[in-house]
Amino acid sequence: MALIVQKYGGSSVGTIDRIRNVARRLIETQQAGNRVVAVISAMSGVTDKLIALAHEVMDNPPEAELDVLLATGEQQSIALLCMAITDMGYKARSFTGQQAGVCTYGSHTRGRIAHIEPDQVISALDEGCIVVCAGFQGVAENGRIHTLGRGGSDLSAIAMAAAVKADLCQIFTDVDGVYTCDPRVVKNARKIPVLSYEEMLEMASSGSKVMQARSVEFAKKFGVVFEVRNSMNNNPGTIVQEENPEMESLVVRGVSIERNQSRVTVSGITAPVAYTAMILTALAEAEINVDMIVANTAHDGMARQSFTMNMNDLGAAQAALKPILPQLGPKARLDTESGLAKLSVVGVGMRSNVGVAATVFRALAEAGIATGMIATSEIRISTTVEAGDIEQAARVVHAAFHLDSNEG
Amino acid sequence: MALIVQKYGGSSVGTIDRIRNVARRLIETQQAGNRVVAVISAMSGVTDKLIALAHEVMDNPPEAELDVLLATGEQQSIALLCMAITDMGYKARSFTGQQAGVCTYGSHTRGRIAHIEPDQVISALDEGCIVVCAGFQGVAENGRIHTLGRGGSDLSAIAMAAAVKADLCQIFTDVDGVYTCDPRVVKNARKIPVLSYEEMLEMASSGSKVMQARSVEFAKKFGVVFEVRNSMNNNPGTIVQEENPEMESLVVRGVSIERNQSRVTVSGITAPVAYTAMILTALAEAEINVDMIVANTAHDGMARQSFTMNMNDLGAAQAALKPILPQLGPKARLDTESGLAKLSVVGVGMRSNVGVAATVFRALAEAGIATGMIATSEIRISTTVEAGDIEQAARVVHAAFHLDSNEG
Repeated sequence: MALIVQKYGGSSVGTIDRIRNVARRLIETQQAGNRVVAVISAMSGVTDKLIALAHEVMDNPPEAELDVLLATGEQQSIALLCMAITDMGYKARSFTGQQAGVCTYGSHTRGRIAHIEPDQVISALDEGCIVVCAGFQGVAENGRIHTLGRGGSDLSAIAMAAAVKADLCQIFTDVDGVYTCDPRVVKNARKIPVLSYEEMLEMASSGSKVMQARSVEFAKKFGVVFEVRNSMNNNPGTIVQEENPEMESLVVRGVSIERNQSRVTVSGITAPVAYTAMILTALAEAEINVDMIVANTAHDGMARQSFTMNMNDLGAAQAALKPILPQLGPKARLDTESGLAKLSVVGVGMRSNVGVAATVFRALAEAGIATGMIATSEIRISTTVEAGDIEQAARVVHAAFHLDSNEG
Repeated sequence: MALIVQKYGGSSVGTIDRIRNVARRLIETQQAGNRVVAVISAMSGVTDKLIALAHEVMDNPPEAELDVLLATGEQQSIALLCMAITDMGYKARSFTGQQAGVCTYGSHTRGRIAHIEPDQVISALDEGCIVVCAGFQGVAENGRIHTLGRGGSDLSAIAMAAAVKADLCQIFTDVDGVYTCDPRVVKNARKIPVLSYEEMLEMASSGSKVMQARSVEFAKKFGVVFEVRNSMNNNPGTIVQEENPEMESLVVRGVSIERNQSRVTVSGITAPVAYTAMILTALAEAEINVDMIVANTAHDGMARQSFTMNMNDLGAAQAALKPILPQLGPKARLDTESGLAKLSVVGVGMRSNVGVAATVFRALAEAGIATGMIATSEIRISTTVEAGDIEQAARVVHAAFHLDSNEG
């Protein structure tokens, strides 16, 4: 008898009919001989409505109270889902984050899971219940409610799977799995059957929006095997698990694209030391996520550094960096460029295969696409291109690695 | 420095503007030098919407899950009220029933308060917070959420006042207090400044809908002095407290009326023993609240019993009694009468004053109003009249005891 955790997002429980659909899936999974824990989000739209209500009261509601308010969204959906399961003749029991033993730390509205005490959940499973847990929430040591921020329900599911030692954690979403590239961009993109945690992490941080990196990191840390699959059909999804030697047979697993990128360049740097730390500290204090970083020295002997970031952060980045320019050098200046996109190829096979970068840049060059900043990790190569070139870039790179066929 | 518990019902927090109004009242109370605990209901309409949502899923939702669903209503209002207080520059902290230490027992959707562990509430008060607790909810020993059923928020407030040893518990509602009679019926009805618990109990059970009897019983048991007052103005309300000798100076405190009454009469009873128990058991098993009971023996030597009840229960009462008629006697029969109303006069002064009943029935007789069943307690006299006579009956009895002036 296997123990399976299934996570359903807000759109999967967005209407009473969809809640019934989820109830049926959970029952089928139990009927197939499994113990089942569901982790679910608030019905889609509910969280936004609650936030709007809070903003009717004040512009910057205290986050501790926002958590109390937002946690009601999942509490409603767990109750309704248990009702639907009961209505179909099966036993169910709901658990709020606190009742499920989800202990958190950190800030309100972006709490982190410290650990889960799953005794009550396991008792309910032992009684034959389908267990339905509220995702996205837990309780801090001081007894206050924490929500986990964006992507928090995925994290709840992965953490619950680790705590109850589940055999599998299925993340149900509105896509069939992780694709070799966005199918809206590359028509012949294929679903990837198996990925390593590292590949999933690189894809998450390079534009594939299927899951947030922190959930993947948690799964990797606790060895939770998970599957991303579609709540609207029965197609097998993408399994994400520990890397194994077989995976290296494919040099490149997929191509990610990320739009709306901007670049900031600080040039004319003559400060002798620690200027990188100075720049990055200023950006971090402004809560700006810097993506690619390129540093070099220009022909005039002065240093320059470039960063990419989401274009929404550009204004804040300029505001954060301007005050420190004088400390960087008398001629230090700031230049910015928007209208960029980022293309990344990801695959653990890169570690043991040379020439991946050459293939990427040859394909782009042959298509006449100019590349900008370049960044690499052990299993990823990223480059910026003009926003208008990104779709063609994705198609030619996807083709260059034969990702539309089964042979990489 | 006094400690005051203030309870606000659903209509008092029914809109964001009204929530702000409550926030202002709480702040004023704190600024006047008090420690303040608010106990509040869900925004009006929210609970009904949640129940409708549950019924979209199934006809008879499991009550344990209904409690999980309904508890979100108060959880939302406590968060919003704390935001409003914060917005005005004061410290506030919300508590769900569980966080406030409200321990319950009994059935789901009609839980009872076992006790309250107010340590966290008191800590928050010590930190200078205005404490905002969710009424209507608590947590059972098994960790599941209980709601307290109708009138539960009043009970939460009274119980919290007992637990934190409050100096006063103010029950804010949409009326100025308890009146000598319903002002819509008797134009010159006056607000009663002080009532004993017993009088409040008799008025609650005889038609005054201001508060449920069980909240008054709880206050009496723990000696909680409470005040019923209007959340929309600053008028002093009605204080309810332990009886004291001064209260006896008024023979009659008020006149209650209750409409929509029906009478059921079982006649031709020849069963030798225990027939009253048999009849009342049948009605109790059908969950019918019997109000007045009159038993006597008719001229033919056969016994008869009459009961009053809300007319909505009449059909169920007939269904419950028909099967046992053969056991009551070969000629036992059932008669019913609807279109009745009940008039009650209440006052602790009755104990030491004779002639109260005579005054009531003389006043009614002089007005040509026929009376039906009569029931009395130590501090109450009730009688049924035709529904069409109830308003005039209330007026003449109100006048007979001079309740429109300050001398009873």
